[in-house]
Amino acid sequence: MRTEGRHFERHFNASETVRDIIIGMSDGLTVPFALAAGISGAVAASGIVVTAGLAEIAAGAISMGFGGYLAARSEAEHYTTERLREQQETRDHLAEEEQEIIDIFSSYNITPEESAPVVEALKRNPEIMVDFMMKFELGLEEPDPKRAFRSAATIAGSYVAGGFVPLAPYMLLSNGVLALEVSIAVTICALFLFGYMKGRFLGNKPWYSAFQTTLIGGIAGGVAYFLAKIVS
Amino acid sequence: MRTEGRHFERHFNASETVRDIIIGMSDGLTVPFALAAGISGAVAASGIVVTAGLAEIAAGAISMGFGGYLAARSEAEHYTTERLREQQETRDHLAEEEQEIIDIFSSYNITPEESAPVVEALKRNPEIMVDFMMKFELGLEEPDPKRAFRSAATIAGSYVAGGFVPLAPYMLLSNGVLALEVSIAVTICALFLFGYMKGRFLGNKPWYSAFQTTLIGGIAGGVAYFLAKIVS
Repeated sequence: MRTEGRHFERHFNASETVRDIIIGMSDGLTVPFALAAGISGAVAASGIVVTAGLAEIAAGAISMGFGGYLAARSEAEHYTTERLREQQETRDHLAEEEQEIIDIFSSYNITPEESAPVVEALKRNPEIMVDFMMKFELGLEEPDPKRAFRSAATIAGSYVAGGFVPLAPYMLLSNGVLALEVSIAVTICALFLFGYMKGRFLGNKPWYSAFQTTLIGGIAGGVAYFLAKIVS
Repeated sequence: MRTEGRHFERHFNASETVRDIIIGMSDGLTVPFALAAGISGAVAASGIVVTAGLAEIAAGAISMGFGGYLAARSEAEHYTTERLREQQETRDHLAEEEQEIIDIFSSYNITPEESAPVVEALKRNPEIMVDFMMKFELGLEEPDPKRAFRSAATIAGSYVAGGFVPLAPYMLLSNGVLALEVSIAVTICALFLFGYMKGRFLGNKPWYSAFQTTLIGGIAGGVAYFLAKIVS
């Protein structure tokens, strides 16, 4: 049982790339699909749908990619700043750091006498004391410094890959109505498959996730379609 | 100094709503802006830009809102599942749980003899032992159960609010070229202001964040504009 639990956690940590793919593809499948459906509900010509779809894919991929990059960078900077602060505290205000450790244990009904040997042990090595405080006081894990760029590229790439699924029919078929129908059919299949895989990777119920993902894409497409029809 | 550190952390936790606003508004300002610029680079009529823009705002808000909802729900479910597992382990396999606590301390160079009083203290109250394991073994904090819906509404609302900034000029001005120019001017101001506020709230350099956010929006808009011009 414990091994299962540990496996699950490891799985969760190892799958940062998987989560980035999910973040990018989730919006990448849905938004260009809904936009293309919306425009083709208002305008017959496939050409405008393709132009708008490509502009959307580029804009969405850039915006989300940079967003992922900045989030990862900001997380890494936050960790570095806090670590430097902890190092300084451990050097200059050791007594206060000791008290903080005692306080953390007290919040779990552990008396200062009971936590004293642990505090003494941590004082043997200041760098390990900093490690301990980063994790147990601040709840921060050291982020992978190379993550920011990889995260940005994964999110943007997944957005583009997802976005071309609903857009391809409009690029290949000159008949706008037929393109819309094929786009809906292809995207529903893709959303269903993506939702199923997402459920498997994140440890949720795969079939439930498949239906849910397809439903969200359908709602977004339907709302965009009728909104565009009303406006135009 | 410590108080400052604590303040910073509290600030970070209190601002989940602020982070949701940032998530929604960051893409909401950028993507509809870039899409509208892209389409008006290819098609002169403001009507199509407004139709596509509204479809995009609806699709983006729905997709990102549901995305935020599912992420918060999945986090809450993960916590509940893991907590039940820890409770069961503490009840049925206490000796193994004890060993796990000893192992956690060992990884910080604390000997089993030194951590023994802490282990004994935790065994007095199984529920506190579970609290301890959730935080120190799994690194999980209890999520707010009401967060999912609030998070979804905040992200979607911010996306819509952000999206109307670049779109409004196309809705109010019949001259497509003028609308594009006003949209660019208004959106650059909005991105700059948003980037500055974002920097302040997240504890980064505000002016740096302002320039960065404006640059990303500008790149997305520029790429979408030239891509749409080439395609059409």
